[in-house]
Amino acid sequence: MTFHERLRTDIEAVESALDAAICLRSSSQQVVIDAMRYSLLGGGKRIRAVLALEVCAALGGDRAAALPAACALEMVHAYSLIHDDLPCMDDDDLRRGKPSCHIAFGEAVAVLAGDGLQTCAFEHLSDGRAVSLLGAERALRLVRCISTAIGASGMLGGQTIDVTKEGVCLTPDAHREMVQMKTGALLRAAVECGCICAGAGEEKTALALRFGEAVGTAFQVTDDILDVEGDKDRLGKPVGSDADQKKNTFVTVLGLEGARAEEKRLYAEAQDVLSVLCPDNGFLPILVRSLEGRDF
Amino acid sequence: MTFHERLRTDIEAVESALDAAICLRSSSQQVVIDAMRYSLLGGGKRIRAVLALEVCAALGGDRAAALPAACALEMVHAYSLIHDDLPCMDDDDLRRGKPSCHIAFGEAVAVLAGDGLQTCAFEHLSDGRAVSLLGAERALRLVRCISTAIGASGMLGGQTIDVTKEGVCLTPDAHREMVQMKTGALLRAAVECGCICAGAGEEKTALALRFGEAVGTAFQVTDDILDVEGDKDRLGKPVGSDADQKKNTFVTVLGLEGARAEEKRLYAEAQDVLSVLCPDNGFLPILVRSLEGRDF
Repeated sequence: MTFHERLRTDIEAVESALDAAICLRSSSQQVVIDAMRYSLLGGGKRIRAVLALEVCAALGGDRAAALPAACALEMVHAYSLIHDDLPCMDDDDLRRGKPSCHIAFGEAVAVLAGDGLQTCAFEHLSDGRAVSLLGAERALRLVRCISTAIGASGMLGGQTIDVTKEGVCLTPDAHREMVQMKTGALLRAAVECGCICAGAGEEKTALALRFGEAVGTAFQVTDDILDVEGDKDRLGKPVGSDADQKKNTFVTVLGLEGARAEEKRLYAEAQDVLSVLCPDNGFLPILVRSLEGRDF
Repeated sequence: MTFHERLRTDIEAVESALDAAICLRSSSQQVVIDAMRYSLLGGGKRIRAVLALEVCAALGGDRAAALPAACALEMVHAYSLIHDDLPCMDDDDLRRGKPSCHIAFGEAVAVLAGDGLQTCAFEHLSDGRAVSLLGAERALRLVRCISTAIGASGMLGGQTIDVTKEGVCLTPDAHREMVQMKTGALLRAAVECGCICAGAGEEKTALALRFGEAVGTAFQVTDDILDVEGDKDRLGKPVGSDADQKKNTFVTVLGLEGARAEEKRLYAEAQDVLSVLCPDNGFLPILVRSLEGRDF
């Protein structure tokens, strides 16, 4: 199977599981289910899900065992995007080339849909299927891993700094800390979920987390560069919105050339770690190259 | 120990555990921690927490084993109040006699604080202390119980119906279904958490859930009656706000006398179940009487 075939297989497995996880329950609260599905199933790179599946496989686990975690990661990611786009937060009207959730469904339903997707992630990790695949102990470790990553010392804390420091010039160190919390923590958690599902030992897990940290930060550097020089149609969202909102980005903090150098350094670090962690794995190094070269 | 001494002991144990659970982490995202603590520690009846602790004790469990669940229930309850009060939802400026979270901290931080309290609940149920108290299997069952109760077929679904049906006259059945989801599901979950922590069998759990359902619905009937004839200072929130917002309540659906009769019937049902479930328990019947007679 080529890289692209395998990537497509992974993404299809995740999207089909997500589709089944959030389905019609009753007509009375249908609108919030529709909004959750609109944001969850509306495309996206599924990078967090693919990382969980493929790190699990690279460490000798069964890809299927990581599917509940992969879905939970995509659910919490979708929740964070819905709430980030709200008028009181980043006030973005466009997401993945479509109207944002609050534009399509109104603000009240968008708040509820984000809330519901967060809940769904934990429901999904604790349901009968997850327990029979993983056992209660590993399933609970996934709950712990993801809840810690999205809490006040992770994604939520990063978003708090982001919205409360708009227009305030952050030092490079403070900015990097914010990115590691806002974006890095969940990508790192995706890698950690893969380790938990594979039953990896402490040493391999520590190495994998170094990989997750490098990729997690690099991912945001690429996003920041694309916000300056990307293409609106390929990105599915406006270009230059960070600058309009006076956001701190790697480009504002390091300059465009500095950001490019940092991006290169971080992806090289990720590849170095992979060559030690799983030297025979053919998928993850290509995945990292595709992240480095992406234009969306 | 008298009823009131024991109630105070329960509440103090919960508040002290909540205080320890959400503490200062770093200065950069301090504002969201402050907002979470403001809403979580700002008073409240703690009825969900007390139900979890006391049902656990009534079924032969150790009250301390139910403390993580009790805290998680209060965290998700506080999250729901913060988001319910937002301008795009019920737009309430006052909560428990203080400015609502978004009035005190702004809308963006209030959205984040609600999000963070939901996350905290699941982090709390999956941390080392919960696992060593309960074991992974029971801790995961608590995650399942609470996430199901607050999801689209529970609290979130009920809130969705509530905000999308304002001004629309619900039938008594549709209104009862909404209440059972919005308020009832979490109170029922509090009772179920108590059963899980006590290691109760299926038969006792089924009986306890009947108790939880009766109390859960009755609680909302009392709230609706107090919104009509309660005292603003005792309640810590405006009176008549349901009518102002054209909300469906037990009073609008059944009339004031009909609501009073329904309240009486439900509390009597709760007492009947208790007399079979735990005839020797001296605390829960008095708790139910105090809920029936409350003026706040």
